[in-house]
Amino acid sequence: MAAAAAAAARVKLALVQLAVGAQKAANLANARSRVLEAARAGAQMVMLPECFNSPYGTQYFGEYAEEAGGESTAALAAMAREAQVYLVGGSIPERAGGRLFNTCTVWGPDGALLARHRKVHLFDIDVPGGITFRESDVLQAGDALTEFGTPWGRFGVAICYDMRFPEMAMIAARRGCVGMLYPGAFNTTTGPLHWELLLRARAVDNQIFTAGCSPARDAAVTYPTWGHSTIVDPLARVVATTGDAPDIVYGDLDMQLVEDTRRSIPVSTQRRFDLYPDVASQ
Amino acid sequence: MAAAAAAAARVKLALVQLAVGAQKAANLANARSRVLEAARAGAQMVMLPECFNSPYGTQYFGEYAEEAGGESTAALAAMAREAQVYLVGGSIPERAGGRLFNTCTVWGPDGALLARHRKVHLFDIDVPGGITFRESDVLQAGDALTEFGTPWGRFGVAICYDMRFPEMAMIAARRGCVGMLYPGAFNTTTGPLHWELLLRARAVDNQIFTAGCSPARDAAVTYPTWGHSTIVDPLARVVATTGDAPDIVYGDLDMQLVEDTRRSIPVSTQRRFDLYPDVASQ
Repeated sequence: MAAAAAAAARVKLALVQLAVGAQKAANLANARSRVLEAARAGAQMVMLPECFNSPYGTQYFGEYAEEAGGESTAALAAMAREAQVYLVGGSIPERAGGRLFNTCTVWGPDGALLARHRKVHLFDIDVPGGITFRESDVLQAGDALTEFGTPWGRFGVAICYDMRFPEMAMIAARRGCVGMLYPGAFNTTTGPLHWELLLRARAVDNQIFTAGCSPARDAAVTYPTWGHSTIVDPLARVVATTGDAPDIVYGDLDMQLVEDTRRSIPVSTQRRFDLYPDVASQ
Repeated sequence: MAAAAAAAARVKLALVQLAVGAQKAANLANARSRVLEAARAGAQMVMLPECFNSPYGTQYFGEYAEEAGGESTAALAAMAREAQVYLVGGSIPERAGGRLFNTCTVWGPDGALLARHRKVHLFDIDVPGGITFRESDVLQAGDALTEFGTPWGRFGVAICYDMRFPEMAMIAARRGCVGMLYPGAFNTTTGPLHWELLLRARAVDNQIFTAGCSPARDAAVTYPTWGHSTIVDPLARVVATTGDAPDIVYGDLDMQLVEDTRRSIPVSTQRRFDLYPDVASQ
């Protein structure tokens, strides 16, 4: 709360719902032009989607993976600096120590790396008649929760399926974060069921801003992305959203609303840690 | 899961969205006739709303309060037995040891008391331009989480504002409950913002059935109840709901859906308790 009160009052957030194709160089160039477009429109913080440099699929991760400092992270550092924005760089397949991760890097407007999140909950599901996917066939899970600082307060970052695990947002908020940012690629089975609901659930329980940034849908690929990149406020109201086509979703976030919400409905001071443990106490 | 698998497959749940007035005897008589109506319609489990025997307001709780075994709990035991249903008896102002509680009692079809929940998170909020309420001016908070067993599996029970605290449903589900039942009286400020969202949030995160049962709205009283008694399934889909008028909301709950959901989207086996504590571990 102190951090939020001391921080700048408003930030314009942009979610780039990128059309992601099979050509990595084209994906990087497209991301750059869209990040610059968002900055020209006034965005101070920009988020790219999960797997923004590669098609989403276990058959692609090895081919598109890069070590730290590879061309995609170099491109992210350069576009953050060029656009002068805080850039939540979606995610890319990362190769490290012979293993693959689904990794988000976050960059400051000076091009410095602020944080790196490796998806900690891998996407292994099997919905009969819907979607079957097993990231764990090729990926390793990360082993840390991730936050980063901005002039508007601290933000937690997590990736897609991480959103289903409420503890991450609970911990971030209780440690003082004012928002949770999720690059994510839900699909046409789980998207209509749960994408907006989960973003709103994390917001209402923790009285923070939440945002999820998805790739645009591409009918030609095997994984049908849901799209619907969405920004939610601390009262769990949808600030801005879109459909499944390429788009940029903008939200003007008044950080005062975090404090106002926590004062109006003061759950953060009313919890009964005599009856259940505090997940943020470790 | 074992408990759910061994339990009866389907239960018809009824939520009695009761018109609650100032006459306690009339409220009890009205509750009885509606519970019997629900049972005639096939309901095997029936829930009444928060504060079903009294207007909702700190100025009323002392006047309407009863000790255990008073006329309202005697009436609940009798109506459960007469209707031959599991009865989640909403809540009543309870007097115990010179203190007042907001208390839910749960009754078996034989009229035996199965559980008693005293609201553990008192409703103290102050939304500017919206609603101000301070239960803690007159009530004491309970000091325990509450579950009860049925032929369809175990259910957790909590009251209204308790719903804003995600740990209660997380703990119940991880201990094997298949549903969370919330007598509740949200209002016309917080109701449209959060009532359905919270019921769906608890369902999606814990892959359980949830239900909230509200009094009907009474324009003549000071506290404008939201109504909208709602049943949600383990995929977080709204099974049945209503408006703000007196009504009975029915849902046929297929308990197999709990297990199917947990197998399709297996979050219950994918949690990273190496990165955050399990709130149900105590």
